[in-house]
Amino acid sequence: MDLRGVSLIAGGEAAKAGAEFRAINPATGSAIDPPFFSATEDDVDRAARAAYDAFLLWRKRSARERARLLRTIADGLDAAMPELVARAQMETALPEARLQGETKRTSGQCRMFADVIEEGSWVGARIDTALPDRKPLPRPDIRSMLQPIGPVAVFGASNFPLAYSVAGGDTASALAAGNSVIVKAHPAHPGTSEIVARIIIQSIRDTGAPEGVFSMLYDQGFAVGQALVQHPLVRAVGFTGSRNGGRALMDLAAQRPEPIPCFAEMGSTNPVFILSGALKQQGNRLASGLFGSFTLGAGQFCTKPGMVFVPEQQETSPLLAELCRLTGESAAFTLLTPGIAANYTRSLQARSEESGLAMQQARPSAGTCAVSAALLETEIDAFLDHPEWSQEVFGPTSLVIRYQQRDAMLRAAEELEGHLTATVWGTEADLAEYADLIAILERKAGRLIFNGFPTGLEVSDAIIHGGPYPACSDSRFTAVGSRAILRFARPVCYQGFPEASLPGELRNANPLRILRMINGSTTRDTING
Amino acid sequence: MDLRGVSLIAGGEAAKAGAEFRAINPATGSAIDPPFFSATEDDVDRAARAAYDAFLLWRKRSARERARLLRTIADGLDAAMPELVARAQMETALPEARLQGETKRTSGQCRMFADVIEEGSWVGARIDTALPDRKPLPRPDIRSMLQPIGPVAVFGASNFPLAYSVAGGDTASALAAGNSVIVKAHPAHPGTSEIVARIIIQSIRDTGAPEGVFSMLYDQGFAVGQALVQHPLVRAVGFTGSRNGGRALMDLAAQRPEPIPCFAEMGSTNPVFILSGALKQQGNRLASGLFGSFTLGAGQFCTKPGMVFVPEQQETSPLLAELCRLTGESAAFTLLTPGIAANYTRSLQARSEESGLAMQQARPSAGTCAVSAALLETEIDAFLDHPEWSQEVFGPTSLVIRYQQRDAMLRAAEELEGHLTATVWGTEADLAEYADLIAILERKAGRLIFNGFPTGLEVSDAIIHGGPYPACSDSRFTAVGSRAILRFARPVCYQGFPEASLPGELRNANPLRILRMINGSTTRDTING
Repeated sequence: MDLRGVSLIAGGEAAKAGAEFRAINPATGSAIDPPFFSATEDDVDRAARAAYDAFLLWRKRSARERARLLRTIADGLDAAMPELVARAQMETALPEARLQGETKRTSGQCRMFADVIEEGSWVGARIDTALPDRKPLPRPDIRSMLQPIGPVAVFGASNFPLAYSVAGGDTASALAAGNSVIVKAHPAHPGTSEIVARIIIQSIRDTGAPEGVFSMLYDQGFAVGQALVQHPLVRAVGFTGSRNGGRALMDLAAQRPEPIPCFAEMGSTNPVFILSGALKQQGNRLASGLFGSFTLGAGQFCTKPGMVFVPEQQETSPLLAELCRLTGESAAFTLLTPGIAANYTRSLQARSEESGLAMQQARPSAGTCAVSAALLETEIDAFLDHPEWSQEVFGPTSLVIRYQQRDAMLRAAEELEGHLTATVWGTEADLAEYADLIAILERKAGRLIFNGFPTGLEVSDAIIHGGPYPACSDSRFTAVGSRAILRFARPVCYQGFPEASLPGELRNANPLRILRMINGSTTRDTING
Repeated sequence: MDLRGVSLIAGGEAAKAGAEFRAINPATGSAIDPPFFSATEDDVDRAARAAYDAFLLWRKRSARERARLLRTIADGLDAAMPELVARAQMETALPEARLQGETKRTSGQCRMFADVIEEGSWVGARIDTALPDRKPLPRPDIRSMLQPIGPVAVFGASNFPLAYSVAGGDTASALAAGNSVIVKAHPAHPGTSEIVARIIIQSIRDTGAPEGVFSMLYDQGFAVGQALVQHPLVRAVGFTGSRNGGRALMDLAAQRPEPIPCFAEMGSTNPVFILSGALKQQGNRLASGLFGSFTLGAGQFCTKPGMVFVPEQQETSPLLAELCRLTGESAAFTLLTPGIAANYTRSLQARSEESGLAMQQARPSAGTCAVSAALLETEIDAFLDHPEWSQEVFGPTSLVIRYQQRDAMLRAAEELEGHLTATVWGTEADLAEYADLIAILERKAGRLIFNGFPTGLEVSDAIIHGGPYPACSDSRFTAVGSRAILRFARPVCYQGFPEASLPGELRNANPLRILRMINGSTTRDTING
């Protein structure tokens, strides 16, 4: 594909009017062709108007038509895999196999949401039939179901150039629900973004969807994203990224004359609690799993375990020794951007030099984005005195916190902020003994993991990738899995409407054969008119 | 019951430390005994701490135990009906029959949420069983369900002294989900609030619930409510009231270091669209229904129709003449508070005198809270030039907007803000001709009503009482009906947990026999371990 480097608005190309920037190859530090051009304020407005006009049509298209677009996009992504992976590798330095897997995950997510809307029960249809003879007052016929919200602004994530970027989970779930989408592409992988955007645009043409249902805007800075979130025609926001970035968008969304839902997944430190029985049983076999988890994807997953609570006992020193060995001997990691690498180095410096935390690190490597893994270590009392150590450091590092007393460990758990995940390693006896730890973690995280590692996120019906702030802007929703569609839909209720004017989902005959709650009972039945 | 006039914190009485105030009898304008005392900042903190501690216990109580508390409260409300109605009548001047009905609605809501949690499927349990042989990677066992969020601050509404006040829908749904509640009582009905609060406290004692699960704080001003929403241990907000009040709380909730969900239902103007065929068919029979709807409860319902679009045709003048007659001949209405009455008078003055809108009004009556109904009238072109006329005026008034052109009416519909309801009067032929009007209103309101009136809200499974801002802070939720419980719950996911450590809802044997989504299929089945 010939990259053109401009924002794509409702199928057309924007002018090369805004500031120019290029992607950086993190492996070499050099700029990659072609140049890309930031969108202008006028581009934002045009994209928003096109998205709004298209929304009016798209929301009325059948689930089958919406699903066809998603499946066409999925097929297009699969077909373009070699080109996508090649460009993404240049822009992110992520390994080929990872990017191939991520492409499949991305097309898989599109197909999952296509399945969800074709099956159709996601709309949560409810029907209370009329009770004309009820005393003292008759009950009218009342029916409700979820419907789309409007144009959604989606922010591509740096760490998932495909699965949480232009055609990622936010875009797929928003389109599936019947919304239009305006993506603010992440400036670290603009070429990958353009390839994906063109696949979406071609799919829109091929399936006859309204062109304005998708636009993608570039910006090397923040102005375009801010303007998008503040645009009166934009009705919701989906974001994956840093806490500072997410909070800034949350604030903008809340401060609008007409506030809108802003779903921001802002990462977390994902505490791991190793309990005594598990440590005894597993010994230093835990080390390779832990090391693998905190360095997977160069430690750039939202679910990277960045805090590990380890009890003081016979097996502790061998475990830590093995973790130190793995860390010390590891090869260099290439981070996604020079900014992320600089942040990583600065954060480690602050923790080891200024705070005096014990640190084991492989020899630092040369190169703009090349860093080495680092293992930090402290005692629980010092940790409790330094709440700032529980903040996420993006990159291949983790902090081991040694504890002797059950109470101190529970106190540390109680003082946790919100996290995407919390992990417990234990025997069944440990679990019984530490039921109070589980009860605490249920309040702190979106997903609790037992005897596993938090990286490696299943995309499924039951998964939750969210959690209390600051992991996420609203713990009632998830960014990943089929439930993610609920972020971009609202219930609409019809009272006393004749059959012919109701959406198919609410008609007596149940033409879509969806599950509905009828007078309190959930069923796929029809209603006998 | 001997009213004590103090805030009630976790079953105990607060000191008479804060500013003193009394309820006003709107019918006489005179203060009612006894005096009530505003809570202090320290009271807020004590209530929040007690609510948090109680939450830790309450969230682990079985649905059956939580339901028992709700049913005990319901029985207590029913038993206290005469006393409740007598006091509420003094404090609100609402008619006896209305307050009796509202008491039943309030106890009915408590029982509805008890039913919802005893049935249990509301938690939306989902289970993806392990696929150990899946390639390239095995799938772990993943299970998720809704759980409570934490202490909820509930703001009593002036216009529903029972159903959306101390034991109203917010309190009942929050407690049902397993949250604790701190009510900020509305200062217009403090005595009614105390009676209800004591019923709740007694019910807590009788059923062995933790005492801190409920507290109620008084304040004649705003400081207590602001402190509640800003308290770090408070995790969600439920509010019914004015747009200014709701927006102020939304902003406080969003500006916290740790933002929390704030569900504010802020009322609306509830447009009514009369279409040509219906007007022809119904003629001035529509007048009594409309007049009844906009003056019901002295026009103090959130769903009062405050804008009525009427086509210019033969039947228009007779309809308006009849509406004018009903309005002009109506007896005085007593509003809830002197403040509401002053606001009503001021708003009408602005519209009739300053804006020059045609106004029909019965002779103004004497008395602090006594007002007369008013019918305002304008042409659609003037209306389109004055978007401020679409703002809610709380009280027995409505604005008739005459339209000739279909286009102008559709433009007015398109320019509507968010509303709780939108009503259409039409024949089936009208509906077919105005499908585009319905498509607009679906984007503007939470509930669409056909050939009915918006007042008279059913409390049921399918009902939605919400809608786009400014009707509501978050259109994805409803304040009324069984779905209201979803405001105060968040999904928690368990990965790889042994059966014994899972909540009952997620265990293989499905001991609660709830509906669950298992590997994509919704069923009440067990899982064969």
